[in-house]
Amino acid sequence: MSVDESNNVKTRLQVHNCVVQPLLTDLYQITMAYAYWKSEKTSDTAVFDLFFRQNPFQGEFTIFGGLEECLRFLENFSYSDSDIEYLKTALPPTIEQSFFGYLKELTAKDVKLYAIDEGSVVFPRVPLIRVEGPLIVVQLLETTLLTLVNFSSLMATNAARYRMAAGDNVSLLEFGLRRAQGPDGGLSASKYAYIGGFDGTSNLLAGKMFNIPVKGTHAHAYITSFSNPSELKTKTLINLNNGKEQDLIDLTLSWRTTLSNLLHISESQASDGELAALVSFAIAFPEGFVALIDTYDVNKSGILNFCAVALALNDLGYKAIGVRIDSGDLAYLSNKSRETFIKVANEYNIPWFANLTIIASNDINEETIWSLNDQKHSIDCFGIGTHLVTCQRQPALGCVYKLVEVNGTPRIKLSQDGSKITMPGKKDAFRLYGADGINIQDSIFL
Amino acid sequence: MSVDESNNVKTRLQVHNCVVQPLLTDLYQITMAYAYWKSEKTSDTAVFDLFFRQNPFQGEFTIFGGLEECLRFLENFSYSDSDIEYLKTALPPTIEQSFFGYLKELTAKDVKLYAIDEGSVVFPRVPLIRVEGPLIVVQLLETTLLTLVNFSSLMATNAARYRMAAGDNVSLLEFGLRRAQGPDGGLSASKYAYIGGFDGTSNLLAGKMFNIPVKGTHAHAYITSFSNPSELKTKTLINLNNGKEQDLIDLTLSWRTTLSNLLHISESQASDGELAALVSFAIAFPEGFVALIDTYDVNKSGILNFCAVALALNDLGYKAIGVRIDSGDLAYLSNKSRETFIKVANEYNIPWFANLTIIASNDINEETIWSLNDQKHSIDCFGIGTHLVTCQRQPALGCVYKLVEVNGTPRIKLSQDGSKITMPGKKDAFRLYGADGINIQDSIFL
Repeated sequence: MSVDESNNVKTRLQVHNCVVQPLLTDLYQITMAYAYWKSEKTSDTAVFDLFFRQNPFQGEFTIFGGLEECLRFLENFSYSDSDIEYLKTALPPTIEQSFFGYLKELTAKDVKLYAIDEGSVVFPRVPLIRVEGPLIVVQLLETTLLTLVNFSSLMATNAARYRMAAGDNVSLLEFGLRRAQGPDGGLSASKYAYIGGFDGTSNLLAGKMFNIPVKGTHAHAYITSFSNPSELKTKTLINLNNGKEQDLIDLTLSWRTTLSNLLHISESQASDGELAALVSFAIAFPEGFVALIDTYDVNKSGILNFCAVALALNDLGYKAIGVRIDSGDLAYLSNKSRETFIKVANEYNIPWFANLTIIASNDINEETIWSLNDQKHSIDCFGIGTHLVTCQRQPALGCVYKLVEVNGTPRIKLSQDGSKITMPGKKDAFRLYGADGINIQDSIFL
Repeated sequence: MSVDESNNVKTRLQVHNCVVQPLLTDLYQITMAYAYWKSEKTSDTAVFDLFFRQNPFQGEFTIFGGLEECLRFLENFSYSDSDIEYLKTALPPTIEQSFFGYLKELTAKDVKLYAIDEGSVVFPRVPLIRVEGPLIVVQLLETTLLTLVNFSSLMATNAARYRMAAGDNVSLLEFGLRRAQGPDGGLSASKYAYIGGFDGTSNLLAGKMFNIPVKGTHAHAYITSFSNPSELKTKTLINLNNGKEQDLIDLTLSWRTTLSNLLHISESQASDGELAALVSFAIAFPEGFVALIDTYDVNKSGILNFCAVALALNDLGYKAIGVRIDSGDLAYLSNKSRETFIKVANEYNIPWFANLTIIASNDINEETIWSLNDQKHSIDCFGIGTHLVTCQRQPALGCVYKLVEVNGTPRIKLSQDGSKITMPGKKDAFRLYGADGINIQDSIFL
């Protein structure tokens, strides 16, 4: 269903993504269902454990994500008529036709799902989800549950690692939609980055669907689309101090000349197209002015043009928010920008100018943040894309879904690879806490 | 829209995935649109190039994917009422309300899109897509077009590399849904792996939506859910030679004893649960019997049980298809299996038995295939999951969308990083072919 339609659906748990449906699975789940059905195993019951064997990113923890989507999936589990028609073509013609009638009636109403809370820190081999119910149905759920948990948990874990690297005083924004693994890869990334500790996303649909704060400024294309202040058709802004319209271009140009001397930056090297773009953006967003300052040269153009616009806005009663730097040596450029802001703040006695927000983007990964920390930087906010949303260091989590009991009897999968041998039997997992409220260990009991 | 609903939609190009919609974009596209609108740039025109700077996987080529989805997106580009309502909350309250009326009317009808054919081999810096039209609209398309092209092209390229490694005589199946980056990551992977040269997928929804051949057998859980042949309620199969029902268990057990001597495999070490599972699966799929043979031990159990069932099926007039091996030393186990098949074929004069299909899976990547080639193997088909669908070696392609012209005037983005400087101006790309029909080079002309 579309996002619009889903708002009107009356079921308690709604499916966010139209492709999350019973056919989002491997064919072999259906062939197994048929073989079980043919073997008259429709009343057999089974227990499956969903768990992973190793923390991702060579790390020491994982954040469990995807549970809500699993519950939505179970709540809505039912094959549509067109699913059944398709399955008739996908399976061999020797299949008994009454099997399709059986499939059509299947729901997950007899399935019990036990799970750790979504967003919890979890560890290898402890079942994140235990699924009990009719053997055929719980087997049919396997692939979709794994799809929903694997990337969600990986993403939340990755985000949490970025948060640990950045510390609590830096804002983290997810900017990765364009590099994500497909449209929904991007949406999932936005959602689970937020669960993992990010502050917002650039992804509007994620904002609409999941109520995540959405942030953004402008692209280099916006800056390069302007050539000169003379081309601006809208030049004025209301002065909040007196309610009168005032020419923001003149004011900005005047400030640029003044600042050029203070900051020892040649006005002739600063881009007039960039100035025009920033003025036009300030007229559009006078209350929330954030400027991309690296289109031409941060030190020779961007910082001068930004400060000129910000001071002009200040004259009219508006506080600029800050700058974004999307290339170059981010430690150096952020420190240089901070120095400039402090200098301007002191020179004109505008204390808040010293604390303007500095946002850094450009292919940032966990190591970049640790390295910037070592170098000392003045960045208040990271916009993080590719490495975050594709989990570049390890793009898949290996959750598995293993049969541990059939009709009350434990089951095991042996393997020549010892790590792949399953723990048979229905288990409960407990987390033990010390008197100080800190958890000591997870224990599994049969 | 849902898959079902999309079948009923009358538009020529339909959106496959409900999340591909104008809000699947970065907020800054909308803030830029407002700033352009506020600057009275609604009649400005622009040209953007969509291209990448480097082939993925340290390779020498890229396969272009995603064009069809881009066209669908353009065809359907329109903000819904609820999109507009959401945008009113996502943008600052100072936004002039008439901007939302302007947005509501926007379509991509004045946009021209030039592109290289989908599925083509493409190279760095040559525009894959050139988009011309109203500045505001073509800017608004950026993120979604990049999202649709980046992963599609990466995936098709990755698949093509697996095809080159495997050669033309080996079948390649995509098995990665459960490890993909979200539900749609899995769907995109199935689709673009097929475009890149795979033969099929395990993903049923991909089969239904894109008409891709779907393949699959059963999981280890199917095997471990059986304990003993005595538990089988359905034991018989029709003998195609005489039309009579015959007990497949008895026949299989008898063959197992016979084969045990021929193959020097102790019957007592072979799993009876595995035998029961394989017999039940053969009864369900007598015409398409493929068996997973590594649940317990390929050499001590799986191969013996499989051959016993396959020979029993043969007695009743059915030809088994083959085996899947999902763990262990795939070169050794496949060669050992092939030797066994040849031995059985010769012993009982069943020539086709020597050519039974051997499918290998288990965390296979491009290097595994090259290494198996070096070791010599007997694998006919690879089932490939995680590494293929998440493009583990490089999980993102870096396509960019750069402004190259505004109102007929070329535009450039400078950068301290020389590789990031754009080529200004509207360009045409030509591929030059030699007399032998082989392409010599791509050329770009202004």
